[in-house]
Amino acid sequence: MDILKKAREIPDAVHLEIGEPDLEPPPEVIERLNLAIAQKRFNYTPALGLWELRERIAKHYWDYYKVDVNPSRIVITTGTSSAFLVAYSMLMEVGDSVALADPSYPCYKNFAYLLGIKPVFVDVDESTNYQITPEHLWDKDIKAVHISSPSNPTGTLYTEENLRALCEYCREKDIYLISDEIYHGLVYERKERTVLEFWDRAIVINGFSKFFCMPGFRIGWMILPEELIRPAEIVMQNTYICAPTLSQYSALGAFDYEYLSKVRETFRKRRDVLYEGIKDIFLVFAKPEGAFYIWADIGRYSEDSYEFCMKVLKDAKVAITPGVDFGKNKTNRFVRFAYTRKEEELRLAVERLKEYLT
Amino acid sequence: MDILKKAREIPDAVHLEIGEPDLEPPPEVIERLNLAIAQKRFNYTPALGLWELRERIAKHYWDYYKVDVNPSRIVITTGTSSAFLVAYSMLMEVGDSVALADPSYPCYKNFAYLLGIKPVFVDVDESTNYQITPEHLWDKDIKAVHISSPSNPTGTLYTEENLRALCEYCREKDIYLISDEIYHGLVYERKERTVLEFWDRAIVINGFSKFFCMPGFRIGWMILPEELIRPAEIVMQNTYICAPTLSQYSALGAFDYEYLSKVRETFRKRRDVLYEGIKDIFLVFAKPEGAFYIWADIGRYSEDSYEFCMKVLKDAKVAITPGVDFGKNKTNRFVRFAYTRKEEELRLAVERLKEYLT
Repeated sequence: MDILKKAREIPDAVHLEIGEPDLEPPPEVIERLNLAIAQKRFNYTPALGLWELRERIAKHYWDYYKVDVNPSRIVITTGTSSAFLVAYSMLMEVGDSVALADPSYPCYKNFAYLLGIKPVFVDVDESTNYQITPEHLWDKDIKAVHISSPSNPTGTLYTEENLRALCEYCREKDIYLISDEIYHGLVYERKERTVLEFWDRAIVINGFSKFFCMPGFRIGWMILPEELIRPAEIVMQNTYICAPTLSQYSALGAFDYEYLSKVRETFRKRRDVLYEGIKDIFLVFAKPEGAFYIWADIGRYSEDSYEFCMKVLKDAKVAITPGVDFGKNKTNRFVRFAYTRKEEELRLAVERLKEYLT
Repeated sequence: MDILKKAREIPDAVHLEIGEPDLEPPPEVIERLNLAIAQKRFNYTPALGLWELRERIAKHYWDYYKVDVNPSRIVITTGTSSAFLVAYSMLMEVGDSVALADPSYPCYKNFAYLLGIKPVFVDVDESTNYQITPEHLWDKDIKAVHISSPSNPTGTLYTEENLRALCEYCREKDIYLISDEIYHGLVYERKERTVLEFWDRAIVINGFSKFFCMPGFRIGWMILPEELIRPAEIVMQNTYICAPTLSQYSALGAFDYEYLSKVRETFRKRRDVLYEGIKDIFLVFAKPEGAFYIWADIGRYSEDSYEFCMKVLKDAKVAITPGVDFGKNKTNRFVRFAYTRKEEELRLAVERLKEYLT
C-alpha cells in the first residue's frame, strides 16, 4: 500500500501494481443497472441475495463447467471479502487452524487473525507450480485448507490431478476445502476446473470483480454444502444485512460470454507481451496460466523486494508490488507484476526496466 | 427472521416488522448515481472512501450540528454493519468486554461474539428512558460502551445531560464510547445531539440507510479519533477493500435537507397515528422521540413475546417483532412496532389489533 501511495505521486509512472481490471463490465450489466434504478430497487434484499441472481449463477455453473448446482446453495456476498469472513467464521472456532499457501493473497491470513483463527502457512514453490498438495498437509493439524486457482500472486493454475487429490484428502480427513476461484475465466491455455467437479462439498468463493470487470460493485458469491446455508444466512444477516442491491441486479447482466471472451483475450495478449518482455530481465519459473499476475524472481538484482520496488518506482518509474506483501517464504526475492494496463504501457514498462536494470 | 418469513407468506398482512424506510432517497441521489454511471465509476475507491464524500459528510456535521470535523477523521463504510466490525476489531482484543444496552439492536452482540469479545449487558428500562447511564457502569470491567440514540427497538433519545455524563465517565475511565447515530434525523420533538459535541474522541457510527432512505446502497460512515484512522484503513483494506463505488458517488446527493425534512415529517405523523392507536391496547411507557419504532409492553396479554407475535400474525394479520429478538431483559413482555408503512396501513393494523385483543 505504501508503494501504491507513492506510485500515485509520480505522474508518469506505469502502474503494474494494481489488482483490478481496467476494462468495462459487459454492456448488459449497465442495462440491468439502469433498469433496477428505473424500478427503484433501493431496499435491502434477503440476506442470501436475490433468488433470481442465485439462479443465474447456478445456470452459469451448468453452462461454463457442466456442473449442476442447486441455486439454494449459492449465496450472494459483498465481494469475495465478505465471503471469506462468513466462511471462516462458520467453519472455524477461535484457535482452529487453516492451511494457506505462502505466497498467497494477504487478506486470507488477516481474516484468520481477525477471528482468532491460526493460519498455518504451506511454503509452496516452483516444484509444485505453487500449488498446495496433499503431501504438504499430512503432518498439519488443520480444520480447513484454503486454495486459490489461478493464484494471486503467482498466476499458476491447479492441475485437475491435484484438485482431485486435495478433494480426496480433505474428504478423508474430514476437513473443509475452500477454493477461491475469483480469477476463473482469466485462464489462457487449458480450461480451468471448479473444485465442485470433484467434490460437491467443497466451498467455492467467486465474484464479479475480476473476469466480469465489476470491482467497484462489491459483489460476489459462495457455494456451500446444504447444511451450511442456514448458518451462513444467520452470519450474513448479522454482519452485512445483504449485498448492495443495485449491484445484485446489475450482476444479472454479467454472463455475456462473447464479451467476456474478449476480456480474456485482451489479458492473454497482455500476459504474452509482459512475459516475453521480462523473462530475460528476471527469472520467471513458469509462464503464468491465469489471473493477471506474473511472479518474478529478482534475485540477480536484490534480496530485498521492498527496497527493490521502491528503487524501481523512483528510478525507472514502474510500479510493481514487493513479494513480501504475499508472505515470508523467500518472498524477499520476488515481485508481482499485474498486467491490468494496456499493451503499450506494458511495453513502456519493459523498456524502462531493461534500460534501468541491464 | 422467522416472523419475517412467515409474514411474507400471508398476502394481506400489515408489515410492522420491517426496519427500513419505504420512502425514496432524495432525488439528487439518483442524479449523482446516473452521473457516476455515465462517468464509468466502476472501480475500487481508496479503502477509506472517496475524499469528496468524506468532505461532504464533514460539511453535514457543520451544517447540522455545528461541529467541526476534519474530513480525514471520517471513513466510509459498507453500511453501518462494516463500521461495527471495523470498530470492534480495532478497539478490542479477544476477551475484552463491551457494554451494550439490553434491549438493543441484536447485531451488536453478534459482532462481539464473532470477534471473541464479551458483551456485558446493561439492563435498561423506563426508569432511565432505556438509556445507559454512568451509574450502570461503575462496577463493570469494560473496554468500551456502545450506545444508540435514538434507539432501536425503543425509539428513545439520550438526553444531553446523560450524553455529557457518559462522555465524562468514559474519558475518566479511559474507555471507548461508540455512539450509533444511524437514526439521527428521525427525531421528532427536540433536536438530537451528536456525541461529538461533548467529546471529540468518541466514535460515531452513522449511515445512509434510515433518514436518507438508501438501505440497499449499503453505505455508511464512521468518525474516529486521529490515531485510529490508519488502523481503520488497514482493517478496511483487508476486510472490505472499499464501500460500493456507485453508492459512494450517490451519497454525495443525499444531503437535501428540504427533502429530508419531509421524510422526518412523514415518520413523525406515522408515529403519532400508531402511538395514538396502540397506547390504549398496550402499555407504552413513553411516546418514542425518534427512529421508527415503538416498544410496547404486552404483559396484559402474554408473557411470551414470540408466541404472541406468531398468534397476532396468524389471527390478526399484523406482523410485529418479538421483544426477545432484542435481548433477555424482560423482553418476553415486549414487542417492537416499526412504522415504516403508510398511515392507512398503520390504521388498519390498529383496527385489527383492537378487534383481536379487546
